[in-house]
Amino acid sequence: MLRLLIDVNVNVNYSLSDWRPRLSGFEPRDSDYADRVRESFDRQRIMALIGAQLVRLEPGECEIQLPFKPELSQQHGYYHGGIIGTIADSAGGYAAFTLMPRDASVLTVEYKMNLLAPGDGELLIARGRVLKAGRTLVVAQVDAGVVKDGRETLCATLLQTLMTMHGRPDQ
Amino acid sequence: MLRLLIDVNVNVNYSLSDWRPRLSGFEPRDSDYADRVRESFDRQRIMALIGAQLVRLEPGECEIQLPFKPELSQQHGYYHGGIIGTIADSAGGYAAFTLMPRDASVLTVEYKMNLLAPGDGELLIARGRVLKAGRTLVVAQVDAGVVKDGRETLCATLLQTLMTMHGRPDQ
Amino acid sequence: MLRLLIDVNVNVNYSLSDWRPRLSGFEPRDSDYADRVRESFDRQRIMALIGAQLVRLEPGECEIQLPFKPELSQQHGYYHGGIIGTIADSAGGYAAFTLMPRDASVLTVEYKMNLLAPGDGELLIARGRVLKAGRTLVVAQVDAGVVKDGRETLCATLLQTLMTMHGRPDQ
Amino acid sequence: MLRLLIDVNVNVNYSLSDWRPRLSGFEPRDSDYADRVRESFDRQRIMALIGAQLVRLEPGECEIQLPFKPELSQQHGYYHGGIIGTIADSAGGYAAFTLMPRDASVLTVEYKMNLLAPGDGELLIARGRVLKAGRTLVVAQVDAGVVKDGRETLCATLLQTLMTMHGRPDQ
Repeated sequence: MLRLLIDVNVNVNYSLSDWRPRLSGFEPRDSDYADRVRESFDRQRIMALIGAQLVRLEPGECEIQLPFKPELSQQHGYYHGGIIGTIADSAGGYAAFTLMPRDASVLTVEYKMNLLAPGDGELLIARGRVLKAGRTLVVAQVDAGVVKDGRETLCATLLQTLMTMHGRPDQ
Repeated sequence: MLRLLIDVNVNVNYSLSDWRPRLSGFEPRDSDYADRVRESFDRQRIMALIGAQLVRLEPGECEIQLPFKPELSQQHGYYHGGIIGTIADSAGGYAAFTLMPRDASVLTVEYKMNLLAPGDGELLIARGRVLKAGRTLVVAQVDAGVVKDGRETLCATLLQTLMTMHGRPDQ
Repeated sequence: MLRLLIDVNVNVNYSLSDWRPRLSGFEPRDSDYADRVRESFDRQRIMALIGAQLVRLEPGECEIQLPFKPELSQQHGYYHGGIIGTIADSAGGYAAFTLMPRDASVLTVEYKMNLLAPGDGELLIARGRVLKAGRTLVVAQVDAGVVKDGRETLCATLLQTLMTMHGRPDQ
Repeated sequence: MLRLLIDVNVNVNYSLSDWRPRLSGFEPRDSDYADRVRESFDRQRIMALIGAQLVRLEPGECEIQLPFKPELSQQHGYYHGGIIGTIADSAGGYAAFTLMPRDASVLTVEYKMNLLAPGDGELLIARGRVLKAGRTLVVAQVDAGVVKDGRETLCATLLQTLMTMHGRPDQ
């Protein structure tokens, strides 16, 4: 089990968790949200192919981790930006899904990702948080950090729009 | 060899190629651009993991195709949005790279992707085109289509910013 | 009346209209769409403040023009990027609104704009086109050109998501 | 002087300042950055036309406020989204400019804005913060809040890329 010293060095000294503190207060509409999310995550076969794991769920929040392997790399040997986008898309999507009713599924409408530093490290972490949960649309933010030698660096940030598909259960 | 009847049904009847015709006229600064791009693509190990192939290169343009396999799917069995983003990111990045000098490498600054239709089909095609090639920054557009039963549907569109890293050869 | 020679010089020689030809074939659900759009545009008081005019409407398309005046400038004397975004947002929004039912209003969910060239000229033109019209969400693309000495240069491009507010007439 | 009770109600109870705390620690490269920014802001004539004011500057941060007037409205009488984008673009741009050297100017490369709530209120506030300051590119985040009856609601959030134009002083 990899233990992380979370110490972000994005030009300034602060931790990711301080920087954007937990948005507490979201009330899930389905008390079984965690089972529903985990079951859906397990059906995303791409997560198994790349080796991603769902490590934390809270109402309005989701964290996914992805250990490095060379098969995930772009031409310079770092995590490919699209793979950072892949786990970030799922992290934001499932953060939104925690707040959706039982009979709904979640759809990504769009996202925009800025790559802030090379994805150079042994572990990639994507943390999705809901910013605004409307009846139909949900806006989420995802920060992705890469951990190298026990230090985490913010390597990407996403702003994402998701849609609640009412009356269409995920399964 | 899969032969495609390109017939997009994005609410209206037009083909992707008509819709955004080839932007001819870009002059590559390095006549060996194709070798340089293909060699870089081959080093993107994620492309081999997912099974993506570089199928066409022109100055300012790049097309990547990815046959479906269940390991690429999201929870409903379609191509995961992040995987669409992965080959689209490479298609736009290599479209830009065709126009860069020999001693430069390419970096994705950011992209924004709208998902327009489910990634439901047997083949995914990402076509990147340079919109504007500045000295440092390049802006590209990528359309991704999914082919099902011989018909292609536009499933995503990206707007992407790339950076020329002068003096840092890709290799 | 300003007559335009549309001849875009975005590194290559092609006209904006060739480059992304008219997407014909959208069927408006409300035959009075043009009146509805014009009436809504006239209520956007910001358009009068800056001097913008709605010059063309088709199903799924809208063009807005804005003559230059120094009061619209950023620090170097060109059109401010936010003002380019303002008329582009309305051009994409009203392109979408042409396709909406009579009892609906339109809401911008988000947009992403790349600035491709300085907004240096005597006339700004924003052309919005619908890419995909879903029941609830509409995706539009907007190109903005700036005309100087009779030549138009593509200065910005947007990718935009809009929402149909069913049952809430615009007025 | 308008005094604000900052109490954001974005579904949850927290203040904007708690939510994304000040990123302290940026070191300006030009000790006269504040004069340089204010002088540039004063040359943005669009700010005078709409009535926007630069109210706070710190290294890596900038806040702009815009009192409501009907001339700024969209069709429903609220702040037009493009106007929210206009002051947000300047807030992020000047947040970046505080960190640039004396002989540089700042250029917006692109931004993406999500509109989270109607711009319904008597004051609009845009707070730009630098996320990452590279040598050439700077990534900033801007939150825009609208104040109604003394309560502030987060109405938009932007993710923005800016460019340092070295050797080209702003003036």
